[in-house]
Amino acid sequence: MSKIRHALNTRRADDFAQWYQEVIAAADMAEESGVRGCMVIKPWGYGIWERIQRLLDDRIKATGHDNCYFPIFIPLSNFEREAEHVEGFAKEMAVVTHHRLVADGKGGLVPDPEARLEEPLVVRPTSETIIGDAMARWVQSWRDLPLKLNQWANVVRWEMRTRMFLRTSEFLWQEGHTAHENAEDAKAHTLRMLEVYRAHAEDDLAMPVVAGEKPEHERFPGAVETWSIEAMMQDGKALQAGTSHYLGTNFAQAAGIRYQDREGGQELCHTTSWGVSTRLVGGMIMTHGDDDGLRVPPRLAPWQVVILPMLRDNEGDAALLDYCEALRSALGARAALGEPVRVLLDDKPGKAAAKRWDWVRKGAPIIVEVGGRDMEGGVVSLLRRDRLWGENGKPAFAAPSHEEAGETIPAMLEDIQQALFDEARERREANIRRGVATLEDMEAFFAGAGRYPGWVEVQWARPTGAELDGVVERLKALKLTVRNVPMDGPPVDGACIFTGRPAVERVLVGKAY
Amino acid sequence: MSKIRHALNTRRADDFAQWYQEVIAAADMAEESGVRGCMVIKPWGYGIWERIQRLLDDRIKATGHDNCYFPIFIPLSNFEREAEHVEGFAKEMAVVTHHRLVADGKGGLVPDPEARLEEPLVVRPTSETIIGDAMARWVQSWRDLPLKLNQWANVVRWEMRTRMFLRTSEFLWQEGHTAHENAEDAKAHTLRMLEVYRAHAEDDLAMPVVAGEKPEHERFPGAVETWSIEAMMQDGKALQAGTSHYLGTNFAQAAGIRYQDREGGQELCHTTSWGVSTRLVGGMIMTHGDDDGLRVPPRLAPWQVVILPMLRDNEGDAALLDYCEALRSALGARAALGEPVRVLLDDKPGKAAAKRWDWVRKGAPIIVEVGGRDMEGGVVSLLRRDRLWGENGKPAFAAPSHEEAGETIPAMLEDIQQALFDEARERREANIRRGVATLEDMEAFFAGAGRYPGWVEVQWARPTGAELDGVVERLKALKLTVRNVPMDGPPVDGACIFTGRPAVERVLVGKAY
Repeated sequence: MSKIRHALNTRRADDFAQWYQEVIAAADMAEESGVRGCMVIKPWGYGIWERIQRLLDDRIKATGHDNCYFPIFIPLSNFEREAEHVEGFAKEMAVVTHHRLVADGKGGLVPDPEARLEEPLVVRPTSETIIGDAMARWVQSWRDLPLKLNQWANVVRWEMRTRMFLRTSEFLWQEGHTAHENAEDAKAHTLRMLEVYRAHAEDDLAMPVVAGEKPEHERFPGAVETWSIEAMMQDGKALQAGTSHYLGTNFAQAAGIRYQDREGGQELCHTTSWGVSTRLVGGMIMTHGDDDGLRVPPRLAPWQVVILPMLRDNEGDAALLDYCEALRSALGARAALGEPVRVLLDDKPGKAAAKRWDWVRKGAPIIVEVGGRDMEGGVVSLLRRDRLWGENGKPAFAAPSHEEAGETIPAMLEDIQQALFDEARERREANIRRGVATLEDMEAFFAGAGRYPGWVEVQWARPTGAELDGVVERLKALKLTVRNVPMDGPPVDGACIFTGRPAVERVLVGKAY
Repeated sequence: MSKIRHALNTRRADDFAQWYQEVIAAADMAEESGVRGCMVIKPWGYGIWERIQRLLDDRIKATGHDNCYFPIFIPLSNFEREAEHVEGFAKEMAVVTHHRLVADGKGGLVPDPEARLEEPLVVRPTSETIIGDAMARWVQSWRDLPLKLNQWANVVRWEMRTRMFLRTSEFLWQEGHTAHENAEDAKAHTLRMLEVYRAHAEDDLAMPVVAGEKPEHERFPGAVETWSIEAMMQDGKALQAGTSHYLGTNFAQAAGIRYQDREGGQELCHTTSWGVSTRLVGGMIMTHGDDDGLRVPPRLAPWQVVILPMLRDNEGDAALLDYCEALRSALGARAALGEPVRVLLDDKPGKAAAKRWDWVRKGAPIIVEVGGRDMEGGVVSLLRRDRLWGENGKPAFAAPSHEEAGETIPAMLEDIQQALFDEARERREANIRRGVATLEDMEAFFAGAGRYPGWVEVQWARPTGAELDGVVERLKALKLTVRNVPMDGPPVDGACIFTGRPAVERVLVGKAY
């Protein structure tokens, strides 16, 4: 394999963080903006986000939610009502204090002291408090419940250390907010949306996840329960890819969301919230990317098939373009994964080999090259991005006939989608160490497991309070965190590795983004 | 007609501004948020905006643009580079000055003096300056041109007097930004996007518009040419519904957007920008709404057909629901206006008559009611929202057979789309007074034309500078503005009504939003 000349400079195995930056640049997905902590999402990166939006939005609507839009500005007083919530976000909020600029007399501009806001406005870090206000207006009786809302929006959290897609000061997301009659309904809905996220991650992003409850100290500020989906990146670290919160009556109390129940009494609603963000794009990169760049799962690919005619600037080009256009048109009329195949005939100027490697780095699932000899032979040269290299260390082109390509590519796209998922799941399973029975064994495992150790599954007694703080500190010294309590684990059997008391549940422990 | 009991309290003819507020509330589209100048867009209003986004986005992509996303925050120094631009926006910009809150010692929160930003950030009022920075990085040679970008985003302009959808401090929009080799290409593109807006307004919103160039004093700050589409609302006022700007090299100079031309020289790009916003929703309301509420053109309607079973909470309901579901399913499999028919079976609890009037106020294009007697007769009761009242002053129900309804509704939706457009165009044409030859005649016309005078078309010599200022002042005294110079007017023939010199073009004059 050493003779392969990979398309990136950095190998995942050598420097995963550097590799991540390089993939983003090589696939032309995003770049630093020059504005602190904010990125510019370029067409290929944004096209993938648009696919995520479309697919997830369909799932959110199919579960009975309506999209709305709420103000980006939240008055300070809204935050003050829910103590834990403001405590969780106050340190990272962008604050608008003026509504006008004025000349500073030195050729520049400054906020106009005459245009100071009476009450500063926060740029939303999340919208529980402002949507809570609306819910309080909209909910009158049990007949108005459940109230199921969703919003696609930008939010701002002033992060000190940022990383493109994974942690940026401004990011794009959806945030769902619902109100229910009682705890049972609200908790069931919290889990229903967690399942929506699991299905979206696994079926659309081809990214296997573990769904489970976050431990107490990792809850969303103001939540009673926080659930997450956790994905393992190729460096063995966990990425929290989505969260779903049962908020109890905390936010209903703060905003006054009350309803008249069936007996005529006044009750507080139980609310939920849940969100996923452009972070998913980072998860997709770190799940599927390889040493040649990005590999985009077909469901997410803005273009699933890219046809590259090898033009020669001569009279043969017209026939070659017709030949390519016939394939484009045949494929565009077919469906794969439940949608029309998205196929691009890339006839922009440029050398065919250079363009091929551009599309390899961008991760288009299938690249079809067509030269004069292919056309004469009635074939095309087809490259599957997920099986790029042949045993001879060269790109593994197949040569189906023109007709066969039109017929087989839709099934091939479905196969690639599944193959990427299977590969990621196998890798994850190989990198979860189960049955680690003592703290010493866990520490020894992480000490000896190399650079990309993966996760361990251990049993614990669900410590709380000061005892939990001790566990968190002990893990922190190893740069480890408790990811979540998987929903579908086998029954416990043994002692808590932290306290020695009988275990009550299994938890996953690992490094995380 | 006096026996009709309309569904709204306010008639358009009595108080158009009050009527507008009432439609928005009655159709449950939006409401004030409690945050200064910002609105909450509710599901029906947001669903219409999502339709606008989908249809316009398709048109923008079909003209070769890629969607991207740029930061919401713009450093002050970016604005300072283009003098006219900052002059135009400085008075209405929200300014972020701090990135953290801290307890004020009195139980509240204040911006943390320790977390003051070195350089304040402006919440984008528009993105020419930040996208210009990116273009300067991305454009190297003539081969990179034209560069055609678009962004869907929220923007903030601190407006003193706000009105839902028409003028809000935060609004949603798309902003296109392109860079070209020379003035000719950039100007042609400015007009190409104006034509995209015209087609979207007329074919999707069924809102007739006049495309033309804005006079000098109405240009976008920093633009060389500004073009607009202007629509006439039912009160005769103009709504500027979209603008397209040729920016010359002004922003390229400020941001340093240069390219190597075909001869190896360094040249400045010529840029364009263009945008439409949630204001379009306000235009749609004021174009098509009537005294019974909203009328949504079928292309924009989240639900084009609403089926209302008249349930009786007895054993007959199941058969009635089956009968309705059969129609829903038959219609859902049909297409109208190039897309699958969007049909809702509304089986939520509530009295059928109350639900009918809710959907009338929301403006669903076709309402189908089905009671036990309809089912026995094999028919349905069908109401076209654009022809609501019969000659007897009662709702004009038709009674097609179940099968006939399934077959004829798609064509009926296309008919409604066209009928709404025709009605609006006829009204507009009847309310443009042409051939007004003197300033006195124009003043006399507006003095005598009643509350909703419409527009006049006059000829002028395209005054500039101080002379133009005089014209603007004179019009301002009558609360009038020059809307635009229509693109397709007949040749001029006569004198400028303001200066008496030979006219060079025709302009539309009227009151405006």
